[in-house]
Amino acid sequence: MDFGRRDFLLSAAAAAVAPQMIATPAGAQTPLPAGGRKLGYAIVGLGSYGLGVIIPEFAHCQHSKLVAVVTGDAAKGKRVAAEHGLGANAVYSYARFDEIRNNPEIDIVYVCLPNSMHAEYTIRAAKAGKHVMCEKPMAISVAECEAMIAACRKADRKLMIGYRCHFEPFNLEAMRLARSGAAGKIRYVRTEHGFTQGDPSKWRLKRALSGGGSLMDMGVYSLQAARYMTGEEPIAVTARESTDRNDPRFREVEDMIEWNLEFPSGAIAGCQSMYSANQNHILLMGDKGRIELEPATRYSGNHIWTGKDGRERELTPPPGPGVTQFAGQLDHLADCIVAGREPIVGGEEGLRDMRIVEAIYRSAREGRTIRLDGRA
Amino acid sequence: MDFGRRDFLLSAAAAAVAPQMIATPAGAQTPLPAGGRKLGYAIVGLGSYGLGVIIPEFAHCQHSKLVAVVTGDAAKGKRVAAEHGLGANAVYSYARFDEIRNNPEIDIVYVCLPNSMHAEYTIRAAKAGKHVMCEKPMAISVAECEAMIAACRKADRKLMIGYRCHFEPFNLEAMRLARSGAAGKIRYVRTEHGFTQGDPSKWRLKRALSGGGSLMDMGVYSLQAARYMTGEEPIAVTARESTDRNDPRFREVEDMIEWNLEFPSGAIAGCQSMYSANQNHILLMGDKGRIELEPATRYSGNHIWTGKDGRERELTPPPGPGVTQFAGQLDHLADCIVAGREPIVGGEEGLRDMRIVEAIYRSAREGRTIRLDGRA
Repeated sequence: MDFGRRDFLLSAAAAAVAPQMIATPAGAQTPLPAGGRKLGYAIVGLGSYGLGVIIPEFAHCQHSKLVAVVTGDAAKGKRVAAEHGLGANAVYSYARFDEIRNNPEIDIVYVCLPNSMHAEYTIRAAKAGKHVMCEKPMAISVAECEAMIAACRKADRKLMIGYRCHFEPFNLEAMRLARSGAAGKIRYVRTEHGFTQGDPSKWRLKRALSGGGSLMDMGVYSLQAARYMTGEEPIAVTARESTDRNDPRFREVEDMIEWNLEFPSGAIAGCQSMYSANQNHILLMGDKGRIELEPATRYSGNHIWTGKDGRERELTPPPGPGVTQFAGQLDHLADCIVAGREPIVGGEEGLRDMRIVEAIYRSAREGRTIRLDGRA
Repeated sequence: MDFGRRDFLLSAAAAAVAPQMIATPAGAQTPLPAGGRKLGYAIVGLGSYGLGVIIPEFAHCQHSKLVAVVTGDAAKGKRVAAEHGLGANAVYSYARFDEIRNNPEIDIVYVCLPNSMHAEYTIRAAKAGKHVMCEKPMAISVAECEAMIAACRKADRKLMIGYRCHFEPFNLEAMRLARSGAAGKIRYVRTEHGFTQGDPSKWRLKRALSGGGSLMDMGVYSLQAARYMTGEEPIAVTARESTDRNDPRFREVEDMIEWNLEFPSGAIAGCQSMYSANQNHILLMGDKGRIELEPATRYSGNHIWTGKDGRERELTPPPGPGVTQFAGQLDHLADCIVAGREPIVGGEEGLRDMRIVEAIYRSAREGRTIRLDGRA
């Protein structure tokens, strides 16, 4: 067991952020992986997600810990390392990234970089002998996704995509209810995800970094929801896009995109993403009732209802696999590595989404339905 | 003024149905049309809507009254006439329909028949010198709608379509809020309407009578909502359909159809109708907030919220133009006739919807976007 100074500091830092979350008694934790060692993560990219969201979550992890950071800002790296009890040798620049191979503390590299850099750093991490957690979208093209999968396979390393909703209690409960037939035969899923973009200089609004607009960001949540709520793979996609190109935020990427997916069962999903208003919603309609979430996929504060005609019963789902969805996600990859299992949301899952994303863009561009099942 | 036995009976009957509605004091009523006479309606079709919904509503009308019924069931006609204080000569069979021309009590014919009979009875009513209220959808083709408009124009008679939501307080408030800029620049409207069809022998499931499935029924509400919430006319439509043809309910007509509309401002509407689950929802997203209704277009019990991210403030709209949306609709046509004005939802409005309905079906059939603005 390793409850030394680092863990004490992590816990203390996290308690200041989310005191109610740290209250889980140590006795309630599941056993550590074989050997009792927490697996070590290197966080690549100290932006708002890597630094602001993920790093504090190690305090809630049972099988994972922060052991290194990779950043282009040496001062920021030094500060973060100090705050989390890491030595100066735990801070890597991008130029020194490949030296992570020499650091046995690093088991996993978590790629929290702009989308266009996911493929490069995933592949380099695998070549350095590290397992990889890569943020969603997995990359900016199907070809990149395939190369990432191939690189991890060749290096015999695990690859997992940061689909946090698969560890989020409200979404897990929605999936469970949908699979249990609680809504009857699934006919329709509706999901919208969006927020109001502000600063036009953000990397998400630069095509070279993001690979696309709202679809490559919030749209992935809508697409994922359509797939995990139906439990099916789409056979056709039809999409339309609407963007005000005079808006300085949207000179390079799309604002709003609306698409539907057709599934083998006959179910349809109507999906949307946008960068000009706030949306966060999942609705499943079956012939016996509905399952609805709003907000659906936030970091916290989600809600879920069932009903026949509307939001009739609000539910309190059972806890997810981790203290938080992020901790559940981080520990899942650690557990898979120790147990020799494949992650439930591996590289193939990211590739599936990216194939659909490319079809959505193509459908919107060509003004026609694109088949995903090889039929004409 | 005409508060004789008929009105007493009507009021008494209505009070039994909806006592809270009849409480409006007579002193609060607006003046009767010139001459003080209530205009007389002949209800054509004593099905669940004409008999069950519309006829009781005359009790709430200020400028309209029931004076005749047209039915293929003589016994039912006789019973309804007796219940509403009408003489035996106020009951017409379909064979005798054209004799309404000789009844000066009848000012307006309200066509509550299956969709495929709307055109015939509207045109015959106009030829008989009567104004026409026709249920939605206006007919089952653009060609029929055009013939109906031409017939009413030739006979110099008013033609109004039964778009009751234009007289419904929650929808009126939503339109007012949208027009006032309460949500900012309108980017997106989402609307779904559906219910679970039961008996496969219903006329709505027979193509020869209905002209189509859920789109020709609940879909018209979604289409209308997209237009009156944006206040714009769509320039393109893209649609997909999904129907289980092995389901005995759906051998002849579609179950579910999902379509989007693109508007000149760049707004998109994502619309849906279905016959295999219950849906009744309108959501408008602007860059400053949202307006949401659920249920949105029911006969009663609708709700409306505004908010930035969700349903933050529930509103109580001011009363509509009538005691009920139905009374407001019935009296509007009477008022237009007396004042020589065009109804706010005339034949041209029904024709606009039917042009889009035909494009929705065509888009779904051909798997491509259909332009509505004449562009290639």
